[in-house]
Amino acid sequence: MLTVITLSELYTARRSFAGTVGLVPTMGYLHEGHLSLIRRAKEECDHVIVSVFVNPTQFGPQEDLSRYPRDLDRDLSLMEPLGVDLVWSPTAESMYPQGYQTWVEVEAITRPLEGARRPGHFKGVTTIVAKLFNVVGPDVAYFGQKDAQQAAVIRRMARDLDFPVRIEVLPTVREPDGLAMSSRNAYLAPEDRRRAAALATALATVEREARAGSLRAGLEAGRGELAAAGIEPEYLEARDAERLDPVTELGDRAVLVAVAAQVGAARLIDNVLIRPRTARKP
Amino acid sequence: MLTVITLSELYTARRSFAGTVGLVPTMGYLHEGHLSLIRRAKEECDHVIVSVFVNPTQFGPQEDLSRYPRDLDRDLSLMEPLGVDLVWSPTAESMYPQGYQTWVEVEAITRPLEGARRPGHFKGVTTIVAKLFNVVGPDVAYFGQKDAQQAAVIRRMARDLDFPVRIEVLPTVREPDGLAMSSRNAYLAPEDRRRAAALATALATVEREARAGSLRAGLEAGRGELAAAGIEPEYLEARDAERLDPVTELGDRAVLVAVAAQVGAARLIDNVLIRPRTARKP
Repeated sequence: MLTVITLSELYTARRSFAGTVGLVPTMGYLHEGHLSLIRRAKEECDHVIVSVFVNPTQFGPQEDLSRYPRDLDRDLSLMEPLGVDLVWSPTAESMYPQGYQTWVEVEAITRPLEGARRPGHFKGVTTIVAKLFNVVGPDVAYFGQKDAQQAAVIRRMARDLDFPVRIEVLPTVREPDGLAMSSRNAYLAPEDRRRAAALATALATVEREARAGSLRAGLEAGRGELAAAGIEPEYLEARDAERLDPVTELGDRAVLVAVAAQVGAARLIDNVLIRPRTARKP
Repeated sequence: MLTVITLSELYTARRSFAGTVGLVPTMGYLHEGHLSLIRRAKEECDHVIVSVFVNPTQFGPQEDLSRYPRDLDRDLSLMEPLGVDLVWSPTAESMYPQGYQTWVEVEAITRPLEGARRPGHFKGVTTIVAKLFNVVGPDVAYFGQKDAQQAAVIRRMARDLDFPVRIEVLPTVREPDGLAMSSRNAYLAPEDRRRAAALATALATVEREARAGSLRAGLEAGRGELAAAGIEPEYLEARDAERLDPVTELGDRAVLVAVAAQVGAARLIDNVLIRPRTARKP
């Protein structure tokens, strides 16, 4: 496993790879969610490149950029046994040099949910992902369903701008009590960590009630469970999983139910994707 | 020479090219300026792809999209003898399908000159060029110096987003009286065509006077020549050729003197690039 920092080292290493390349873009502080992406990339591609970059342009001025957890040595020791070929950990100065002024923006689907609470967030995400695609030239790029809106936005960007990259989105990996794995879980004090499991159980309730017949009742029940855990969500909403417009009942398209909430020192997000049941053959 | 329309035909043809690929993006209605780009591409690259697409998103609502001159048969007959390998002439619907919502924007250097007069123009240009780069995957892309700000904006975009494409900008090709070749020259009535030569002669005057010691006096003399030809310019300005910030005298960086004016039925642009003289060896 080779670890490089500069663009020129990256290009040199990249040129030595024949065959297909899978890219796993990360902000480091890896958990089982990231590792599941790496394992899948390793299964599907001849070479696996992992980028580790806490991208400053996707953090708002009041957000947690400076305290975002970082531990590259730990990350490397987690990746080494998985057969990662190349880890690229660039500096912010090399990604956004003096005079930098170009941005990639996706419009409608970045507006609700996270986009409404984190102005500029997705502009930072789509810009850095476009750059990573151009630098690395992967055949496939792997993202987690935990960041469901991000996944939809990146799929949309890749399709709209004709990036020659297949986007793979893999299921959220969870702790035993259901909490979605996230680098930000490190911010949680023990009592908040216990309460945080209510996010996942509330989402499970929404799905169950929605499938039983009422999405509206499901959302209400979910809000009740969050309130019982002392969690006031920023949003708990049901939207079309691709177009992200609001939906009021299940239909013939996948529905995303997404939640965001401040739990103690951590702002957490989670979601459940409710796929339409395949109709039985007559 | 193969001519294709759909993305899938383009991808199939592209995959058959081994070696380097040069891309010449055009809006068709080719003139000697375009042909000079194609000839250079043919010299430098193993394969040459020319795109012909009147990109709707770079035209403002009051602009000349609907009457922009188009003649693909004529374009093909001009390209055939030059050894173009592939002509790609996509439809607007395939480039901007239903639900399209992603844009590439360059900030500071798109604001003055054309950007100030044509809101949204460069957003359309950078978006379509990013798409062309992703679809075609060229090693080199060729642009004309006639659209000087466009060239600077595309260079900036390619550098900022790390596109693995070399940008080549070739000199403006001119009619015998100096008028810069442009597809829009077709709009000129004979009397306007005669007057239009004043754009190039005024720019030559600016350069001569500037090199003689005063850029300010040069711009004043240039404005006088335009007025004598009955041309009221939208702008005649001197700017740093790369950063596009205003300059008042020549220095150690290239200076762009750019002009835009409505001449009869045509809105024309032209420019001169004043490179610093290399110091003599002592």
